[in-house]
Amino acid sequence: MTTNVQKFFSSIKKISKMGDFQELKHIEGLRVSAISASLYKNERDDLALFYFPEGANYAVAYTKNSIVSESITWNNENTKNNIKALVVNTKNANTFTGEQGVNSLNEIAKNLIISLRKIESENGYEKSKLKDLLFASTGVIGEKFPVEKIVANIQNLVENLKTTQNKIIWLKMASAIMTTDTKPKVAYSEIKIGDKIVRISGIAKGSGMIAPNLATMFSFIFTDADISSVVLNKYLNKVLFNTFNAITVDSDTSTNDMVAIFSTKKIKSKKLNIFSSKESLKFEKALKTVCLELAKQIVVDGEGAKKFITIKTINCQTIESAKKIAFSIANSPLVKTAIAGEDPNWGRILMGIGKSGEEIDSNKLIIKLGDFTVAEKGKISESYNQDKLKEYMTSDAILITVDLKQGKEDYECYTCDFTHDYIDINASYTRS
Amino acid sequence: MTTNVQKFFSSIKKISKMGDFQELKHIEGLRVSAISASLYKNERDDLALFYFPEGANYAVAYTKNSIVSESITWNNENTKNNIKALVVNTKNANTFTGEQGVNSLNEIAKNLIISLRKIESENGYEKSKLKDLLFASTGVIGEKFPVEKIVANIQNLVENLKTTQNKIIWLKMASAIMTTDTKPKVAYSEIKIGDKIVRISGIAKGSGMIAPNLATMFSFIFTDADISSVVLNKYLNKVLFNTFNAITVDSDTSTNDMVAIFSTKKIKSKKLNIFSSKESLKFEKALKTVCLELAKQIVVDGEGAKKFITIKTINCQTIESAKKIAFSIANSPLVKTAIAGEDPNWGRILMGIGKSGEEIDSNKLIIKLGDFTVAEKGKISESYNQDKLKEYMTSDAILITVDLKQGKEDYECYTCDFTHDYIDINASYTRS
Repeated sequence: MTTNVQKFFSSIKKISKMGDFQELKHIEGLRVSAISASLYKNERDDLALFYFPEGANYAVAYTKNSIVSESITWNNENTKNNIKALVVNTKNANTFTGEQGVNSLNEIAKNLIISLRKIESENGYEKSKLKDLLFASTGVIGEKFPVEKIVANIQNLVENLKTTQNKIIWLKMASAIMTTDTKPKVAYSEIKIGDKIVRISGIAKGSGMIAPNLATMFSFIFTDADISSVVLNKYLNKVLFNTFNAITVDSDTSTNDMVAIFSTKKIKSKKLNIFSSKESLKFEKALKTVCLELAKQIVVDGEGAKKFITIKTINCQTIESAKKIAFSIANSPLVKTAIAGEDPNWGRILMGIGKSGEEIDSNKLIIKLGDFTVAEKGKISESYNQDKLKEYMTSDAILITVDLKQGKEDYECYTCDFTHDYIDINASYTRS
Repeated sequence: MTTNVQKFFSSIKKISKMGDFQELKHIEGLRVSAISASLYKNERDDLALFYFPEGANYAVAYTKNSIVSESITWNNENTKNNIKALVVNTKNANTFTGEQGVNSLNEIAKNLIISLRKIESENGYEKSKLKDLLFASTGVIGEKFPVEKIVANIQNLVENLKTTQNKIIWLKMASAIMTTDTKPKVAYSEIKIGDKIVRISGIAKGSGMIAPNLATMFSFIFTDADISSVVLNKYLNKVLFNTFNAITVDSDTSTNDMVAIFSTKKIKSKKLNIFSSKESLKFEKALKTVCLELAKQIVVDGEGAKKFITIKTINCQTIESAKKIAFSIANSPLVKTAIAGEDPNWGRILMGIGKSGEEIDSNKLIIKLGDFTVAEKGKISESYNQDKLKEYMTSDAILITVDLKQGKEDYECYTCDFTHDYIDINASYTRS
C-alpha cells in the first residue's frame, strides 16, 4: 500500500511535462471550447463550454452547504433528463450575488442558445433551449457576477468549439476550470463491453475548501457509453462515497461545487443500463478509478500541500464509524501540522481517534505509521523506533493505519499536510 | 461590543508586567505549592499541589474525547463528594501509557499521603487517603509517565506548601500548569452574600487543542463559599455552555483536560445551596465572569494567535442552531486564515454559515464585520466600503455578527486567527 501511494504521489508530484499526464481520448458526441473572457487579469482561459449537439444524459451531485451558488439554483430549477451544454466560469462563484446573479445566467443562456443556433441549423440538430443548459461557477463569493465580460465572449466561445478532443485539448479544458489549482487534473479509463470500447474522460478542479459531503470541487466526467440518466445517477452515488467524498483538504465545504457525469449515448450497449450486471460492475469499476484518480489529484494539489496522507481505518464495527474516525484524524489541524513538520507525533492521531466520539477499546487498538506499529495494547509499541519513524516521516506520502479490532468494516480517506503555504494562499485570496 | 472586546484584548495582550494581571486573593482552607520536578529540561515549575487540609467539596467536567488520560480514569474511579488534594503535572499527559501510567498514579498517591501525614497529625486534620486525591496531567501523549522524577519531588512539593496565597503565588501556580502557553491565566471575582465576602480565584492553562465539548484545557477554580458538591456541579454545568464550551482554537479536542471547581466551605452561607435563589444567581454570575475571563485568555493565547475573534449568531431559531453556526464559522481554517491576512473575505463567513447544514434564509441573513454590514438581502451590502473594511481588519479584535432573523436565540463564541506561528509551534511539539 505505502509503495503504491508513494508511487502515485511521485507520478503526480513530478509533473513537469505533458508526458506526466494520462492521455484522455475523444468522446464522440461532445464538443469543447475554452477561452479567456478576461475574468482574471492575465489572459488565462477562464470560460469553458462543453456542448453536446445531440444532447446528453447526465447525473449530478452538488455541495451539501446550505447556501449555494445561483448557478446550482439554476440547474436545480431546470432539471431535465437530457441536456445540451455545460458552461463553466472561474473567478466568480455566483454565490450571494442576488438578482444580479440570477439575471446574469438568464442573459448568458439566451446569448448562448442564439450563438449555438448556427451549428444546430446547419447540421439539423435540435435547437437548444434555455432549460437545456447547466452552469458551474467557481471563485470568489459575493462579488458582482461578470455577466458583461462573459456575454461579450459567448460568440467567441462557440466559434472555438472543437469537434474532437485529444490529450492537449483535454488539458486545456482542465486548465480553464482551475482557480487556486497549480495543475490541471485529468483521468481516463476505457473498458470493453461486448465488442465495443467504451471511454470515460474526466477532469476536475479544486485545491482548497475541500471536504466530504460532498465533492466540494468541480469534476466533469464524460462517457460515450449509452446510459440513462437514472442509471448514471446510481453509478455516481455509488462511487462518490469512496472517491470524492473520501477526501479533505481543510474541512471546509464550498457553496457551489459539483460532480457531474454525462453520457453522449454514442456507443450503444443496453447491458450498462441493467444496474449490477457483470458489464455494469465493470463500468462502475472504471468510473471509480477515474473518480479516485481525480480525487487524489485534488488532494495532492491541496493548497500548500507538501505531503499526501492516506488514512485507513480497519476492522471497525460499522462503515459509518470507520469513516467518522478516518475523517476525525484527517481534519485535525494538529495531525496535519505534525506531518508537515515530519514529526511522528502519534499522540495526536490518538487524540483524533478519540475526538470522533466513537467507542474505542484502547487495549485492542493498533496505530501504524507506514509499516511501523507505533501503539498497541494501550501503550507505545515495544518495537517503537524513533529513528526509523523520523526517516519514514520524511516521505512524500504518509500512510496512517488505525486498526480497531472491533469489527469487519474498513474505510480509506485522503488528505494533505497543513503548511505555511496554506496560510499564505488563503490569507490573501480575494486580492489575487 | 466591539469596543469591549478590543478593550479586553488590549488589556490581556499587552501583559508585560505584574500590574497587567488581576489580583487573585487568598482562599481560606487552601494551601498551594509549585516546584520543578525537572519534567522539562529547563528548571521551570512543572508540578503543582493544591491541598485542602480540611477537605473540599468539588465538581469536575472532563474532555468528551473517548480516549482519556489515566489521570482522568483515576479520578473517575475514586469519586467522592469530598477530596483533600489535587496534583497537577505538565510535560506528560499520562495518556496511552498503559499499566505504567496507572501504577505511577498509585505510587505518587501513596507517597503523597505519607508526606502529608506530618501536617495532618500536627494540626489534628483527618488523614488523607488514596481516594482523597485527584490528578490532572497535561503534555505529550503516549510517552512513559515520569513517575520517578515526580515521586522524588513529593516531599519537596509538600514542604513548599504555602498556607496563604497572594497575587504572586497565584501567578506562580498558574505558570506551573502551563505547556505551550505564553502567559499564565488568572481571574478573580468576589461577591457579598449577606454580610460576608465570598471569593472565587481561578487559574487556567491551554492554548492549542482547544475545542468545545468541553473545556479542553485545565481550569481550576477555588471558592471559600460553603457549597455542596451537588450544587457546585449544577453551577459548573450551567456556566460551561457560554464560557469554556464557547471557545475554539483549532477544533481539536484533548484527551485529558478538565475544569474543576472546589469549595473549601470556610464562609458559611446556606443560601448558596438553594439553587436559583437570588444569592445563588449572584454567585453563578460571578463564577461565569471568572470562567469567561479564563476562557477568553486561553483564546488570546491560542497557538500563534495574533487576533481575537468573537462570533455572535443572533435571532436564530434554537440555541443549538445558533451554537452550531457560530462554531462552523469559528472552526473554519479558511475564515481563520483570511482574518490572519486581514482580508475582509466575508464569502468565507457565508461558506461557514452554510457548512453548518442549518437552514438559512439568504434574503433575511445579515453579516456584519464590526459595525459594518457586509451582506444583506441575498447580496453584498449597498453600504459596503472596501477601504473602511480593510482598515477594520487590521484591528487586534474582530467581531463577526451573523443575524439570521429567524428566531430569538443568540450565541457567542470565541476563537483566534490561524497563522504561520500555529504551524511552527505544532510542527515540532514533541521535540521541545
